[in-house]
Amino acid sequence: MTIIDNAVYVDGVRTATPHNLEQTFEMLAEHGGMAWIGLYRPTKEEMAAVAQEFGLHELAVEDAVSAHQRPKLERYDHNLFTVLRPARYLDETETVEFGELHVFTGPNFVVTIRHAETGGVARVRKRLEERPDLLRHGPEAVLYALLDQVVDDYAPVVAGLENDIDEIEDQLFSGDSAVSRRIYELAREVIQFQRAIHPLPDMMVLLEKGFEKYGVDIELQRSLRDVEDHVQRVISRANSFRDLLQNALTLDGTLTANRQNEASAAQNEQVKKISSWAAILFAPSFVAGVYGMNFDHMPELHWEFGYPLAVGLMFGAALLMYVIFKRKGWL
Amino acid sequence: MTIIDNAVYVDGVRTATPHNLEQTFEMLAEHGGMAWIGLYRPTKEEMAAVAQEFGLHELAVEDAVSAHQRPKLERYDHNLFTVLRPARYLDETETVEFGELHVFTGPNFVVTIRHAETGGVARVRKRLEERPDLLRHGPEAVLYALLDQVVDDYAPVVAGLENDIDEIEDQLFSGDSAVSRRIYELAREVIQFQRAIHPLPDMMVLLEKGFEKYGVDIELQRSLRDVEDHVQRVISRANSFRDLLQNALTLDGTLTANRQNEASAAQNEQVKKISSWAAILFAPSFVAGVYGMNFDHMPELHWEFGYPLAVGLMFGAALLMYVIFKRKGWL
Amino acid sequence: MTIIDNAVYVDGVRTATPHNLEQTFEMLAEHGGMAWIGLYRPTKEEMAAVAQEFGLHELAVEDAVSAHQRPKLERYDHNLFTVLRPARYLDETETVEFGELHVFTGPNFVVTIRHAETGGVARVRKRLEERPDLLRHGPEAVLYALLDQVVDDYAPVVAGLENDIDEIEDQLFSGDSAVSRRIYELAREVIQFQRAIHPLPDMMVLLEKGFEKYGVDIELQRSLRDVEDHVQRVISRANSFRDLLQNALTLDGTLTANRQNEASAAQNEQVKKISSWAAILFAPSFVAGVYGMNFDHMPELHWEFGYPLAVGLMFGAALLMYVIFKRKGWL
Amino acid sequence: MTIIDNAVYVDGVRTATPHNLEQTFEMLAEHGGMAWIGLYRPTKEEMAAVAQEFGLHELAVEDAVSAHQRPKLERYDHNLFTVLRPARYLDETETVEFGELHVFTGPNFVVTIRHAETGGVARVRKRLEERPDLLRHGPEAVLYALLDQVVDDYAPVVAGLENDIDEIEDQLFSGDSAVSRRIYELAREVIQFQRAIHPLPDMMVLLEKGFEKYGVDIELQRSLRDVEDHVQRVISRANSFRDLLQNALTLDGTLTANRQNEASAAQNEQVKKISSWAAILFAPSFVAGVYGMNFDHMPELHWEFGYPLAVGLMFGAALLMYVIFKRKGWL
Amino acid sequence: MTIIDNAVYVDGVRTATPHNLEQTFEMLAEHGGMAWIGLYRPTKEEMAAVAQEFGLHELAVEDAVSAHQRPKLERYDHNLFTVLRPARYLDETETVEFGELHVFTGPNFVVTIRHAETGGVARVRKRLEERPDLLRHGPEAVLYALLDQVVDDYAPVVAGLENDIDEIEDQLFSGDSAVSRRIYELAREVIQFQRAIHPLPDMMVLLEKGFEKYGVDIELQRSLRDVEDHVQRVISRANSFRDLLQNALTLDGTLTANRQNEASAAQNEQVKKISSWAAILFAPSFVAGVYGMNFDHMPELHWEFGYPLAVGLMFGAALLMYVIFKRKGWL
Ligand SMILES: [Mg+2]
Ligand SMILES: [Mg+2]
Ligand SMILES: [Mg+2]
Ligand SMILES: [Mg+2]
Ligand SMILES: [Mg+2]
Ligand SMILES: [Mg+2]
Ligand SMILES: [Mg+2]
Ligand SMILES: [Mg+2]
Ligand SMILES: [Mg+2]
Ligand SMILES: [Mg+2]
Ligand SMILES: [Mg+2]
Ligand SMILES: [Mg+2]
Ligand SMILES: [Mg+2]
Ligand SMILES: [Mg+2]
Ligand SMILES: [Mg+2]
Ligand SMILES: [Mg+2]
Ligand SMILES: [Mg+2]
Ligand SMILES: [Mg+2]
Ligand SMILES: [Mg+2]
Ligand SMILES: [Mg+2]
Ligand SMILES: [Mg+2]
Ligand SMILES: [Mg+2]
Ligand SMILES: [Mg+2]
Ligand SMILES: [Mg+2]
Ligand SMILES: [Mg+2]
Ligand SMILES: [Mg+2]
Ligand SMILES: [Mg+2]
Ligand SMILES: [Mg+2]
Ligand SMILES: [Mg+2]
Ligand SMILES: [Mg+2]
Ligand SMILES: [Mg+2]
Repeated sequence: MTIIDNAVYVDGVRTATPHNLEQTFEMLAEHGGMAWIGLYRPTKEEMAAVAQEFGLHELAVEDAVSAHQRPKLERYDHNLFTVLRPARYLDETETVEFGELHVFTGPNFVVTIRHAETGGVARVRKRLEERPDLLRHGPEAVLYALLDQVVDDYAPVVAGLENDIDEIEDQLFSGDSAVSRRIYELAREVIQFQRAIHPLPDMMVLLEKGFEKYGVDIELQRSLRDVEDHVQRVISRANSFRDLLQNALTLDGTLTANRQNEASAAQNEQVKKISSWAAILFAPSFVAGVYGMNFDHMPELHWEFGYPLAVGLMFGAALLMYVIFKRKGWL
Repeated sequence: MTIIDNAVYVDGVRTATPHNLEQTFEMLAEHGGMAWIGLYRPTKEEMAAVAQEFGLHELAVEDAVSAHQRPKLERYDHNLFTVLRPARYLDETETVEFGELHVFTGPNFVVTIRHAETGGVARVRKRLEERPDLLRHGPEAVLYALLDQVVDDYAPVVAGLENDIDEIEDQLFSGDSAVSRRIYELAREVIQFQRAIHPLPDMMVLLEKGFEKYGVDIELQRSLRDVEDHVQRVISRANSFRDLLQNALTLDGTLTANRQNEASAAQNEQVKKISSWAAILFAPSFVAGVYGMNFDHMPELHWEFGYPLAVGLMFGAALLMYVIFKRKGWL
Repeated sequence: MTIIDNAVYVDGVRTATPHNLEQTFEMLAEHGGMAWIGLYRPTKEEMAAVAQEFGLHELAVEDAVSAHQRPKLERYDHNLFTVLRPARYLDETETVEFGELHVFTGPNFVVTIRHAETGGVARVRKRLEERPDLLRHGPEAVLYALLDQVVDDYAPVVAGLENDIDEIEDQLFSGDSAVSRRIYELAREVIQFQRAIHPLPDMMVLLEKGFEKYGVDIELQRSLRDVEDHVQRVISRANSFRDLLQNALTLDGTLTANRQNEASAAQNEQVKKISSWAAILFAPSFVAGVYGMNFDHMPELHWEFGYPLAVGLMFGAALLMYVIFKRKGWL
Repeated sequence: MTIIDNAVYVDGVRTATPHNLEQTFEMLAEHGGMAWIGLYRPTKEEMAAVAQEFGLHELAVEDAVSAHQRPKLERYDHNLFTVLRPARYLDETETVEFGELHVFTGPNFVVTIRHAETGGVARVRKRLEERPDLLRHGPEAVLYALLDQVVDDYAPVVAGLENDIDEIEDQLFSGDSAVSRRIYELAREVIQFQRAIHPLPDMMVLLEKGFEKYGVDIELQRSLRDVEDHVQRVISRANSFRDLLQNALTLDGTLTANRQNEASAAQNEQVKKISSWAAILFAPSFVAGVYGMNFDHMPELHWEFGYPLAVGLMFGAALLMYVIFKRKGWL
Repeated sequence: MTIIDNAVYVDGVRTATPHNLEQTFEMLAEHGGMAWIGLYRPTKEEMAAVAQEFGLHELAVEDAVSAHQRPKLERYDHNLFTVLRPARYLDETETVEFGELHVFTGPNFVVTIRHAETGGVARVRKRLEERPDLLRHGPEAVLYALLDQVVDDYAPVVAGLENDIDEIEDQLFSGDSAVSRRIYELAREVIQFQRAIHPLPDMMVLLEKGFEKYGVDIELQRSLRDVEDHVQRVISRANSFRDLLQNALTLDGTLTANRQNEASAAQNEQVKKISSWAAILFAPSFVAGVYGMNFDHMPELHWEFGYPLAVGLMFGAALLMYVIFKRKGWL
């Protein structure tokens, strides 16, 4: 098991950083306070000790080990099991990278489990250790701070997606046919993002009820409602992204057909031009053909200036037709 | 901090216009009444004094400073924090320009904060100062009047959008391919407008409950319900705009394909015409070719009128084919 | 103010038709009964007297003057303000023409206000005056009868729309490209019709609750429920029209593309035909070219029947190719 | 009035088949039991006697006479008015044929009214007469049995529609362009079918509440719930049909465009081929042209084997080009 | 009747494996415990004995015999009838194969009925027999275990579908036109899968209520909630598959049109090329034509180097045009 951090807090202040979990459990039993253990992808066996000590429920432990959970909040007696999906936006690939963060909270402990490289837990711990007044409220305060961090981290995801949608709109009207794929792939990312955020409002309501019932500090309750407000904002914007990308997909089809019309029109122009030139060139060829005939009695053939006249006729006829077609707008 | 206006009202009448906030707070403490402070994009530090004096909640103050909030209504003990998104329609660019207006109301104060150039607060203050009977009802009356103004100002937005949709319909059937982009962009504006108005009904319900609970004057309650009715009307029309633009987008695709069919048909006509002319011109060329052959025994070559006959044959054959194709409708 | 009709009813029977409103108010005060005043587009000033006498609420009066309301039902103490949108189907233009009817009802009066040329109020009054047993129930009976009339008048609208959808289906498959516009415009009319009817069920529920609470005659309650049933029927059919027209729009796109395919196939046929003819004509031209060469030693040129043989060769080659292409199905 | 059947049942057994309604009413008054009268499209006058005797409500009677009702269930005191839309699938035309069945039930009577040729009432009566144990439960048992029959008869409709959708899928991929119309028309039938079945669950809930309230036999209650389960199954499948046909419509458009691409590709091939042949034929024509020139000093013209060499050159050049184009894959 | 397994369990341990059902019923009566009978497609007659002994409800028995049920949960007094649709994903055909599993549970029995080759019942029995502590809880534990198995088995279905959607995305952009059919067929499978899983949450809620009411062990209740969580996860992903495939279908249409544009552009290029070559070849032909004229006075014809000059002119003109067209990018 990778223990990322392991600390005991008394009255909002870190009083010990034990080397192993046994020490943590002992200290907690002796001096009271709150333990906050940070783990990274624990195995079933590794979770067993923690589960036993804190009375974590078997089913929640199973989820924590197997990972791939959707965001949820489950209450087992006095313990709470929370799953969150932190997100990060990678602009190079235009993908949303999801983390997975599990949090067990009980009367005197917090166990945070990361199933991805990032997740923001360290940042939250650092922030809280600088605010003992907040950390003093115990596990609920830690849970709130984690939720707050995860939800705040959705803001750059939303901004990144919005930025790409703006880019897509410009690309759409510039006629770049690669935009089709980009719209589709961005829509897929938005769908996945929606799956990560849509369970949150119901979770928040459940959590708020718990906070109310267990008489958690009113300020913490309000802070939680503030997080909920941010969640609503994120959801509202993600929903509008879906609509925009749907429209963009439809429009892309129409613009594609439009370009086809333009190509068709260009082709028509070309055919007109070619036909005109063919007609222009036909005239002198025809004159040549006529005077290539072998009749005995073709007076022109015997005129002194027959040849230059014929050449003149050739050019004249070609010129005449050129002028006619030019006037008709075919050339 | 840009203080836009700063006044104390007693019994619905402006009794003082202090030069700074400290004076306002003193007057309020001494003579009672209601303060109405109008701010423009205050910084965190600037908001601190106001927040302290009126007991504004830290989280609401944070929102008020950072802006970019969706419309919402939050109650903190006896204070209310309201976010509104006033809108204006710019017909030249066919965009909806959104303001952002934050309102703190408490037992004896109103703080209005603008985060955009316009918002209509000054107009509301002027209107209310002309109606002391209304202003006498205190902060609730101000909040109602702001809501009323913001919602009334949605009417020209709706009218502008409707007008553009009408224009789009005409443009659609006139075959202007630029309409695709216009439909898409207008749909985007409508989506944004919907995000600004959809939270309002729930906010109104919350506010009405508060008005009922705090025994606010029945007439003010009814006026609020009147605003709610206007909100419903705006929402119903904005929703129908979405549907209309969706249909327009689909139809645009079909009409584009239709134009393609027409181009195809025109091209077919052209090909027919060109082929016909090629055939017509072939006839005289062929005659010239035949009489250009060098056989010893070609009687026609020695006829006295062989040449004019050949030319006649050329014209005759061409004319015959011209008539045939004309009759077939190919020319 | 255009007073369309102005009557006092006692026990379901018209007892007076006063010349002006003052008289009406006096009679009502003296003899009791119910007044029913029918107005047409009153101005603000004109409404003032009526509002004052009957205690109409300022906000409702404002709506009644400014018009352009969506269907709604508002209760102010003992008065009710109802907005209805009667509809008529104009088959020539395939549009739904909407009226706007406002109804104020109180303990002893009904004020009906028309904001469009038609609306059916006169028909309802006539019908009720023939049924004193119904009219005796007072303002509630009038309100019911108006609702009943408006909803019954939706039936021909629904029938007209259905008829046009049937026509559209036939037109679709006959390949008439004008159908695109027709589908779009009919869909727009259906969307507007839906906006007129969708608020009705909620209004009916509100009204029914009022009828129950105020102990209105059970038969009138049942009649109201009958109207509600008709409303449901209208809504269900209008909804299905939306779906049908949506499908028609999609199908229209596909059929358009299909016709394009057919045009494409026809063009391919044509190109084949033209190419075949070009090849057929090439043969004799080539023969002519060969025998136009000036070699000293070209035995055929000196044959006695060289020329007819050459001509024969020309026709033979052309015929052979014609047969070949015919067999290949290219001609 | 067409009286289809007219019987009195005592204790679940048919005790009389009176010749007219008066007799029925008398018997019922004298001996008790339950009357079951089956009518076919009665006129207003014809319904009057039945309505009077059994106290049917005027509004329900109006509906029963005018027909064209959507499925519904209305309670008037102790009487119930039920409208059902039986359905039959006609595979030849791929249409759903709807019947309309009205049922009045009261304490001691059932009146069934058919507004279409079929409806299944006779089958239900026969089935019930064979089960006196069921029929003994009175009007509720008859109503249940009719519902059960109507809902069971939806099964072959669902099966027929599913079968046609399967056929459509095959047809889609075989490239038959007639499938567009078929999809559209089947979707229309499904939409109508949905209108016939969607009101049923709410009706069942209402009926179940009545059964519970009036203490109807628990077994009949369970049977009713079984019918409700079948209704849910029918609705779930009809909904999936809508989705499938919607997808089929979209796909049809894409496949049509795909065929267009194939036609385009074929046309490109053809143009290549024709151009190649034109180039091949150009070569010998050009040779002929060159040796048709009249220069005094053209040595080849005086060679003994000039002519055969020229012809050889013609064939050689043509062959060379043929080989080149063949290698390039243009032929 | 195919009896697949037939056992009596006392205190969570298999105490007997009777040869026929009569024995089972006797043992149960004598020694208590729980019977678990596993059947495969029983006929009506075969079910009669079981139904009689355990008091199974006639309607549930009818469903169990006729099969083709949607997932549901019905309570009859102390018995429960559950229908589940296990699923398996066949990757070769990209279809979801559905089983159908019926479960009757009562105070002291479980009857499992399979209507398809697979279903997982044997695996569940084996797993439970290894855990007497769980099996001791009786029929509820068996029902839970079956639900758990069926829902766990949905995971590979979801994974298989997701994998195919990934493949489809790659195929889409590789321009394989066979993808249209694949998208459509996969969407159909997803629709069927949704029909199998969407009734589950409501069933779970019903079952949980029962567990609560009948005081079933809290751990079993929690395990059930864990299954519900997995169901939610499956539903959320299946829903996102629908959206993805819908987008894929739309995109496929656009990409198809895009390929058409590319074909169009290629064709334009080709026409340009061919026209250029025709013009290039025209030049020498025209020279040949001119010098094939028979004028008496054509000085060039008598020049000594007239012929080579003419040939030079032919090549020169052709070369000039070649260079011109090359520079214009037409070649
Ligand atoms: Mg789990
Ligand atoms: Mg997941
Ligand atoms: Mg990017
Ligand atoms: Mg935050
Ligand atoms: Mg970007
Ligand atoms: Mg991805
Ligand atoms: Mg905030
Ligand atoms: Mg926002
Ligand atoms: Mg207003
Ligand atoms: Mg405009
Ligand atoms: Mg404009
Ligand atoms: Mg914008
Ligand atoms: Mg109003
Ligand atoms: Mg309106
Ligand atoms: Mg019409
Ligand atoms: Mg009516
Ligand atoms: Mg018509
Ligand atoms: Mg209109
Ligand atoms: Mg009716
Ligand atoms: Mg109907
Ligand atoms: Mg068929
Ligand atoms: Mg049945
Ligand atoms: Mg069939
Ligand atoms: Mg039909
Ligand atoms: Mg196309
Ligand atoms: Mg059943
Ligand atoms: Mg089924
Ligand atoms: Mg498949
Ligand atoms: Mg499981
Ligand atoms: Mg696969
Ligand atoms: Mg299938």
